[in-house]
Amino acid sequence: MTDHSHTLSRRHAMALAGAVLLAPGLAAAQGNDALPSWRDGPRKRALLDFVGAVTQEGGADFVQPNARIAVFDNDGTLWVEQPAYTQLVFILDRIRALAPGNPDWQQDPVFRAALAGDLHAIAAGGMEGLIRLIGAAQAGTSPDDFRGVVAEWLASARDPKWGRPYTALVYQPMLEVLAFLRARGFATFIVTGGGVEFVRTISQDAYGIPPHQVVGTTFSLKPGEADGRITLTREPHVDFVDDGPGKPVGISRQIGARPIAAFGNSDGDYQMLRYTTEGPGRRFGMIVHHDDADREYAYDRDSDIGRLARAMDEAPQRGWQLASMKNDWARIFP
Amino acid sequence: MTDHSHTLSRRHAMALAGAVLLAPGLAAAQGNDALPSWRDGPRKRALLDFVGAVTQEGGADFVQPNARIAVFDNDGTLWVEQPAYTQLVFILDRIRALAPGNPDWQQDPVFRAALAGDLHAIAAGGMEGLIRLIGAAQAGTSPDDFRGVVAEWLASARDPKWGRPYTALVYQPMLEVLAFLRARGFATFIVTGGGVEFVRTISQDAYGIPPHQVVGTTFSLKPGEADGRITLTREPHVDFVDDGPGKPVGISRQIGARPIAAFGNSDGDYQMLRYTTEGPGRRFGMIVHHDDADREYAYDRDSDIGRLARAMDEAPQRGWQLASMKNDWARIFP
Repeated sequence: MTDHSHTLSRRHAMALAGAVLLAPGLAAAQGNDALPSWRDGPRKRALLDFVGAVTQEGGADFVQPNARIAVFDNDGTLWVEQPAYTQLVFILDRIRALAPGNPDWQQDPVFRAALAGDLHAIAAGGMEGLIRLIGAAQAGTSPDDFRGVVAEWLASARDPKWGRPYTALVYQPMLEVLAFLRARGFATFIVTGGGVEFVRTISQDAYGIPPHQVVGTTFSLKPGEADGRITLTREPHVDFVDDGPGKPVGISRQIGARPIAAFGNSDGDYQMLRYTTEGPGRRFGMIVHHDDADREYAYDRDSDIGRLARAMDEAPQRGWQLASMKNDWARIFP
Repeated sequence: MTDHSHTLSRRHAMALAGAVLLAPGLAAAQGNDALPSWRDGPRKRALLDFVGAVTQEGGADFVQPNARIAVFDNDGTLWVEQPAYTQLVFILDRIRALAPGNPDWQQDPVFRAALAGDLHAIAAGGMEGLIRLIGAAQAGTSPDDFRGVVAEWLASARDPKWGRPYTALVYQPMLEVLAFLRARGFATFIVTGGGVEFVRTISQDAYGIPPHQVVGTTFSLKPGEADGRITLTREPHVDFVDDGPGKPVGISRQIGARPIAAFGNSDGDYQMLRYTTEGPGRRFGMIVHHDDADREYAYDRDSDIGRLARAMDEAPQRGWQLASMKNDWARIFP
């Protein structure tokens, strides 16, 4: 992971390190604020109350440090997912780069849509079409090689709205939540519908989360041998989709314990939020609501990307906090 | 995980905590010994040299803390695996307990062998037969329920040779290696052919390794809903075998990075040892050789359980350390 850290923004690493270093000190000094980018209000208070309750030794809601597990969706929860998932932008760039060697792609509607950059047509192809594109973009490389390709792409790619590297478009209030929870003994995990290796490329530098604490969609890996060495080759078919009902499965398989706090932003996080908050004892669920067209984007139930309907509708009855980017966040980016 | 910690031996937790607490101090005081149960000799020196080299800032072999990943096989490497894998003993006990409700098992040679406790006949059924038994023993429960069943069994089961709980039969020299590596900034992982949830039940208390740092064989998990709650149900078929060539796959999928140190004891660890030591830069591979019939067991190339042949034969050319329990270990158990 450290091999390509120079390709990622130093600025976020610094911002994050700052948050990590400051949080314990801030926490120790009574009255100081470990979440300065959160405006005072019910959401911030609910989060502080929860963390206070589960970390108070002798309290009714105390949770041992080993069991303080918090899970975070990535796209739209920790970084920007509009106008298209960053990984999708990467895949489309890769498909374009690989197209000259794959003339048969021109006969395939999914690949034609990809080559035309037609996001609506790609969305119309559903998860199945998307998985075929991802498979084609990633197949044949080893995991090590693939991480190199992603790191190289991230170093030069720029978001169309802000013209900044994608790794600059992480949410400062969420970086503060991550650092605050870790300072309180939590282990923080990403649980993403995105490809696990793609997200692992950025997780340490962008969020302070090591690769093994990223749960995600996986492609089949074929073991073999070449030139007297063990090889692993990525195959073009998904063997696990870590989205929707898959998120509790991925959590159970990789983390091996039920989280006590979950953060998401779309219906793809609905089951993860339920699985987390249906456990016994004090629990916490939070949804990031993209309602800030001025500073970021405003979308929910009608969006192709990051659709949020059922999880929002059921949030009150399930006790989930609906955090408004517009009202609850004083700042969006670091 | 913390829920059933009272069912596991306090003694090991204490021994381990002692090792963890002592190791940094010992290391800081020049000349002191973080590995007191290892006799002086080439194996101990090789391990100390490796750790010294990869942790010396500015040195040619320095490795950033994030990339200091060490992987350990479990059965026969961290605890006793003879006369049968502990999980197999558990499974046979479960099969016997469930047999009255499954009369058709009497018609099946694999299940008849299990009910008779005939280890050779079970071994003759190969991995496929074993997986059917494991599936039957574990199916239909949720992961949470399953951990409870395992914890309850471990609390009462006793090893036939020493009459002690299985969690008492961990190797003190390996506990010291785990603690020493962690004190030097390594993340330590178990990579086991055993069922991941079985091993997760003991990993924290026995080894100080949290459940999410255990990679193992997995069974299919079916998500569903019952009584208004998300459910996960263990199905009776394996979806990933984390043994032999599967170990590098499991490592890549769950850890997401190539380890720099690997510890095993059988040919099931051969590919993991190669995958680890074939990476660039300074690497370390070690095989625990069971050659101590007096204090534990003596077995290698002719054993049904923990067969060690190819990995031992190739150890010299591959630079792997063959640690003799008889000669290199001053003590076996805590």
